[in-house]
Amino acid sequence: MRATIIHGPGDIRVEDRDYPTLQLPTDVVVKVTASCVCGSDLWPYRGVRSTRKPSAIGHEFVGVVESVGEDVTGLAEGDFVIAPFVVSCGECPQCLNGVTVACDFLAGWGGRDKAGFRIDGGQGQAVRVPLAESTLVKVPDVAEPDAELTANLLTLSDVMATGHHAALAAKVAPGRTVVVVGDGAVGLCGVLAAKRLGAERIIAMSRHADRQALAREFGATDIVAERGDGGVAKVRELLGGVLADSVLECVGTKESMEQALHCVRPGGALGFVGVPTGGSEVPLRYLFDSNVSIAGGMAPARTYIPELLADVLAGTINPGRVFDSVMPLEEAPEAYKAMDERRAIKVLLKP
Amino acid sequence: MRATIIHGPGDIRVEDRDYPTLQLPTDVVVKVTASCVCGSDLWPYRGVRSTRKPSAIGHEFVGVVESVGEDVTGLAEGDFVIAPFVVSCGECPQCLNGVTVACDFLAGWGGRDKAGFRIDGGQGQAVRVPLAESTLVKVPDVAEPDAELTANLLTLSDVMATGHHAALAAKVAPGRTVVVVGDGAVGLCGVLAAKRLGAERIIAMSRHADRQALAREFGATDIVAERGDGGVAKVRELLGGVLADSVLECVGTKESMEQALHCVRPGGALGFVGVPTGGSEVPLRYLFDSNVSIAGGMAPARTYIPELLADVLAGTINPGRVFDSVMPLEEAPEAYKAMDERRAIKVLLKP
Repeated sequence: MRATIIHGPGDIRVEDRDYPTLQLPTDVVVKVTASCVCGSDLWPYRGVRSTRKPSAIGHEFVGVVESVGEDVTGLAEGDFVIAPFVVSCGECPQCLNGVTVACDFLAGWGGRDKAGFRIDGGQGQAVRVPLAESTLVKVPDVAEPDAELTANLLTLSDVMATGHHAALAAKVAPGRTVVVVGDGAVGLCGVLAAKRLGAERIIAMSRHADRQALAREFGATDIVAERGDGGVAKVRELLGGVLADSVLECVGTKESMEQALHCVRPGGALGFVGVPTGGSEVPLRYLFDSNVSIAGGMAPARTYIPELLADVLAGTINPGRVFDSVMPLEEAPEAYKAMDERRAIKVLLKP
Repeated sequence: MRATIIHGPGDIRVEDRDYPTLQLPTDVVVKVTASCVCGSDLWPYRGVRSTRKPSAIGHEFVGVVESVGEDVTGLAEGDFVIAPFVVSCGECPQCLNGVTVACDFLAGWGGRDKAGFRIDGGQGQAVRVPLAESTLVKVPDVAEPDAELTANLLTLSDVMATGHHAALAAKVAPGRTVVVVGDGAVGLCGVLAAKRLGAERIIAMSRHADRQALAREFGATDIVAERGDGGVAKVRELLGGVLADSVLECVGTKESMEQALHCVRPGGALGFVGVPTGGSEVPLRYLFDSNVSIAGGMAPARTYIPELLADVLAGTINPGRVFDSVMPLEEAPEAYKAMDERRAIKVLLKP
């Protein structure tokens, strides 16, 4: 099969790999019908995170179950499934607490499972899925989703679940005022998640006209293009002299974390989901003095998918709108380039 | 009148000061019937925080309203009142959000109000209270509380409200497992608050027999004397291989914060109320990887007092048990010494 391999910074190649087969009775093999490039895939692409050896990449995909291990009872050939961005067992204390991203049997796409067997990356034609029954979510009554539904479902793998996580961590609730820092796919999904949770006022911090437009479509009531102190002042002005109840940090840099922190009102909440790229620690004294809470991290997508899926199937949310570009898998190198250069918000890859 | 003045590290004196009088129509003057020494008073006493000039000290007191400014309608001479540990207006956005400790008109006992008038410290015979109606809480149907009730009411000024804040920040709820780091009055009140909020398992980290006994009386189900990695291992063992859902940090040092952080399970919550004494920053990457949330800071005691007061008056909580020593005001220097040397958990001062 064809699969996307990262060899080093800026070096993405689509290569031949063995077609995956069942290794364990709890496996299934999924034929990928759509995958995509994540903002966090850009960290190794840019060399911010190192790549020690060529590795299969991609952790967001949807597809059709092709073969099923003998211990798997909840999935059958032909089922359409969503893969959360990590593998989880569903039975350990962490999974039972809903924190599937801290699963005792955690494994990542493109890595190896606890038994040592290779797991394929999501940006390829097929993937062996370990612990398939607890990892995958079956989409009921859907055999072949159309392009729009496929895009919507694919966001549940990561970005929509992550935006939702940011909103929950920032305690978004009906009537709350919200600021979203970051206008990538996750930030935009954060806007949509905040709207979905009933936020009254949603300020999207964005400097790009296309992203501003999508933010408004997703529910942003205001756009702030300024950054730093100017951005904080603008938020304060828009909210009548007070800062925001809830702030979603969806980037991961030192600057974005500071921007986010300084937009929260005393006693408010900061939800952060941008993978921290370093240089930023939580100033404890600031939190003490302001009573601002901080929560976030990797989203337990597996926990959130059923709830978000219901809304996607009901047509009340359309997170798939974050895909402003669709390319064949063979053009994965160009997909990375387009996202790196911010020519695309998020690229969907068709194997 | 007599009042406690801090002159510098280790230098606490009880001196003569002018008896307070009404300065503004929103003032009342309270004759103090009981006050006490706070763990945070020990920071300037120990020189951890500097004392630039001699200052009235003490921020926890209860007493009787003696004179009433003309704009004050909700309080009358003879009312028995509880003073939260800061002055707040009750009307600014922060107060309306319940974050009275970030009030736009915030002032502290022993300091000055926004109008520039001196405010007495709590460890004295009387106090001019600015913004009295929004700051003080009247105890209904109580004219002269006995010693036990006085002690209970006095804890609502700060330590019981602070323990409650830590428990809320750590998301304590029915069925949750809890660890409390710190066995001072606040930590012990944190145990009581966790019990009150329905925690199933409460582990108090303490090395002192008297404090361990009080922790058990307040609802601790287990005591852990070990610290560092040994303490974390013991918590994990007691909780069946998982760390705690909720951890209350009630000290404020680098060591105690690390201890607390490492006792939280993935996806759990850390509530911190120990005034950070520096040296401790929370590693963002650790929070990201563990999905641990952090919240806390100064407790909005004014917001919590009505709810806690109801339980004190109903006799369902007895937080006043943290006072293991009562001294006349004149012995304030000895009270500080006894607390500094950990001979007393908390000393009540009778003016």
